[in-house]
Amino acid sequence: MAFKSIVLTSSLLLLVSITFYAIKFLHYSEVQKLENVYWGPGEPKQDDPEVRPFRIDLKENVLKDIHHRLNLSRPQIPPLEDTETQYGYSGKIMEEVMDFLKTEYNFKEQQKFLNTFPQFVTEVQGLKIHFLHVKPNVTDDVEVFPILMLHGWPSSVREYYGMIPEMVNPADGRKFVFEIVAPSLPGFGYSDAPSKKDCQGPEMALIFKNLMEKLGHRKFYVHGSDWGAVIGTHLSTLYPHQVIGFHSNFCISLANKSIFKILVGMVFPSLIFPEEFQHKWYPPMDTLRFFFSEAAYLLLQATKPDTIGVSLDQSLQGLIAFMFDKMSVGTDKDFVRFKDGGLPLKYNYTILFDNLIFYYWVPQKATTAARLYSQNLNYKIFQRGFYNNPVDKSVPCGCTVFAKEFLYFPEEVLRDTYRNLIHFTTHKDGGHFAGLEMPDVLVKDLLSFVEKTLPKTRRYF
Amino acid sequence: MAFKSIVLTSSLLLLVSITFYAIKFLHYSEVQKLENVYWGPGEPKQDDPEVRPFRIDLKENVLKDIHHRLNLSRPQIPPLEDTETQYGYSGKIMEEVMDFLKTEYNFKEQQKFLNTFPQFVTEVQGLKIHFLHVKPNVTDDVEVFPILMLHGWPSSVREYYGMIPEMVNPADGRKFVFEIVAPSLPGFGYSDAPSKKDCQGPEMALIFKNLMEKLGHRKFYVHGSDWGAVIGTHLSTLYPHQVIGFHSNFCISLANKSIFKILVGMVFPSLIFPEEFQHKWYPPMDTLRFFFSEAAYLLLQATKPDTIGVSLDQSLQGLIAFMFDKMSVGTDKDFVRFKDGGLPLKYNYTILFDNLIFYYWVPQKATTAARLYSQNLNYKIFQRGFYNNPVDKSVPCGCTVFAKEFLYFPEEVLRDTYRNLIHFTTHKDGGHFAGLEMPDVLVKDLLSFVEKTLPKTRRYF
Repeated sequence: MAFKSIVLTSSLLLLVSITFYAIKFLHYSEVQKLENVYWGPGEPKQDDPEVRPFRIDLKENVLKDIHHRLNLSRPQIPPLEDTETQYGYSGKIMEEVMDFLKTEYNFKEQQKFLNTFPQFVTEVQGLKIHFLHVKPNVTDDVEVFPILMLHGWPSSVREYYGMIPEMVNPADGRKFVFEIVAPSLPGFGYSDAPSKKDCQGPEMALIFKNLMEKLGHRKFYVHGSDWGAVIGTHLSTLYPHQVIGFHSNFCISLANKSIFKILVGMVFPSLIFPEEFQHKWYPPMDTLRFFFSEAAYLLLQATKPDTIGVSLDQSLQGLIAFMFDKMSVGTDKDFVRFKDGGLPLKYNYTILFDNLIFYYWVPQKATTAARLYSQNLNYKIFQRGFYNNPVDKSVPCGCTVFAKEFLYFPEEVLRDTYRNLIHFTTHKDGGHFAGLEMPDVLVKDLLSFVEKTLPKTRRYF
Repeated sequence: MAFKSIVLTSSLLLLVSITFYAIKFLHYSEVQKLENVYWGPGEPKQDDPEVRPFRIDLKENVLKDIHHRLNLSRPQIPPLEDTETQYGYSGKIMEEVMDFLKTEYNFKEQQKFLNTFPQFVTEVQGLKIHFLHVKPNVTDDVEVFPILMLHGWPSSVREYYGMIPEMVNPADGRKFVFEIVAPSLPGFGYSDAPSKKDCQGPEMALIFKNLMEKLGHRKFYVHGSDWGAVIGTHLSTLYPHQVIGFHSNFCISLANKSIFKILVGMVFPSLIFPEEFQHKWYPPMDTLRFFFSEAAYLLLQATKPDTIGVSLDQSLQGLIAFMFDKMSVGTDKDFVRFKDGGLPLKYNYTILFDNLIFYYWVPQKATTAARLYSQNLNYKIFQRGFYNNPVDKSVPCGCTVFAKEFLYFPEEVLRDTYRNLIHFTTHKDGGHFAGLEMPDVLVKDLLSFVEKTLPKTRRYF
């Protein structure tokens, strides 16, 4: 029949073209090469070759200004009746945390503590980059592996303070330790912000590869959390022969293949997600509702970093509310049901204020940190294809999944990006800021990953 | 053929069910009745029956605090090289506007000016409501029509100061004037904020109907802009026999029928949009990109009003950046290409600061104003069906469309909600804040609308 033939022919044509586009879509992209762009202000200049010691120095007038601002507070707006923090980090909690900052937080003591690890600054591609550089003091029979540790937003190198001691000191029976390089991302903490547009994830990866080379490390491990994980993944993709192993507590795969799988999983969850993690994506309407409830900060930083930056850089209270809101939700999304936003259940406020005061407020970096979103969450970054590049099989990768992490990618999906995934662990507790919340657990996982890479690693050293 | 029959039968079934759902979907909803909810704190109390005079009173210590904060400013972060305000209201402009506020804005003079119109407060449903109440001084042969004028965000009653003189004074040949009631929305300016959840648009409409009745007006005109237009539309839908006519410079129709038409128009623009307005929706990707670039403030206020509220209520600079950013884009979306955000092209800063300082900063209303979004932009408001209620045919409606208004609904789509649309004008200039930007043009349009309603209106008075 003519009708039947038309239906059959067009179905066949449709099938062929879908297959064609699917194959093209699912295929990995080519890895592009990056130039050594100059990110400083104005015309390119030669980098200062020196690596200079650095100490956090909270000036008396800045401290005075902080105390002044704390006492300048206007009355706080109480939350709507019968709500806790469903509408955000309300005036009720702000009173408590401001009170803590006024009366309990010891600025001088905390500065002393933050200066316990050796810190340095050096210029890379026109930017002064700040980093902790902690070398172990060990005997000859202990191996020392360099590791680059990359933080995210709204975090800082403070995230790694709880992990460092265990990593640089040889434990009973462990025959390796780390030489730690933990930099502040460009635009964060005590690192300069790029003055020019389009310093995206891959560009930051190049900056850190250059930093490691300047410090004499051609080969090194990488650990990353949050944006640091994204940048660390780009680094592993771009320079696989320099990464001994990549480890992260925020492994995501945005390869086309993975996006396809996640979409399939949203309709047929059991095909993609293990039983115990189906609730992370399913039902899709709940996932979408959670995204829309919590992603406004991300959209704002992605589109208007300079606008929200004025609030955050000029108002200590604005910065606290904005960041503590995200830390609360990131630690456990059910914390909105708690009057105090739940943070005291997992942290002492001192650790949270160390991060906020010393790496965002004092160096005034909220605007430039927010720009990381505007530079990285746009059409261009997907068009460039970096998310569709897998990490070379030569790089062993390890992912640890904490129970309350808001994003979840199944092991099989992660393999689209981390093709040599030799380590995948899940935990029954812990959230997005695992380095702050449970450093011991994260260190243990990192060490266990490194153990697995040793047979190959030993060839380098 | 069996195959052919299956195809035909299933196509037919599909068609029938689509038609069925379409008819159900496109059908108007039933108008629900509202209760007189008590919105004050705690247990319900009787409203104070008095209407008390009110004057803005900027206390010496508040003014001192403002000047103190102006001098407290930290350095501003310069925008990225080769950008203007594409990433938001940058530090460069903030320096200029802060400087204007420090040296040129005359707080005392402006307070005097804002107090030129008589103002009152009275309790409605547990909330103290603030309003301008301007009565004309006229001879017997001039008719006086009461009108309720509703502002939106980030505006205030200041929006109507430029329109009032022309409206209360009889012009040559015009035989009618207005008695103006312009209230501050609940949670804005000098009106109390609801202490309880779910004070949505229809609930605010009831509050204002009650206010008008308390002032002795059972029948009145309504004019609204921005959220005030939404609330005014609800009022016209709920109480059509009390609205003599509804006029707005922000007419939108979110009836199911209209949403369907807009979707069709995005694929076949010429079916729905007049040639000269197709660029407002088409190509759809540009519309979507504009939405995502500019709607983060809306999503943030809809989900975390208390979080962003801390920034805006505690930081004068944060408030300025956040609101001026939106006023710039709302006035003309191409203003992002201007170094100064374009505002000086259309306004003097004094008018913008009148609005911001006296109706948001001084009464500390940024958090409670932001909550309007959280209470109105949610699933519940659509579920309640109010947007799918048309205004009764007995209410004449008038819409004026300014050229740079960011939303555009064609006349035929607006008729889904405003079924008795007797007046529809378009202008070659002007943006979202027409009452501030070109009050003369807006007044002229409003008067011309009212002229058209007179044959029917005269029966009431």
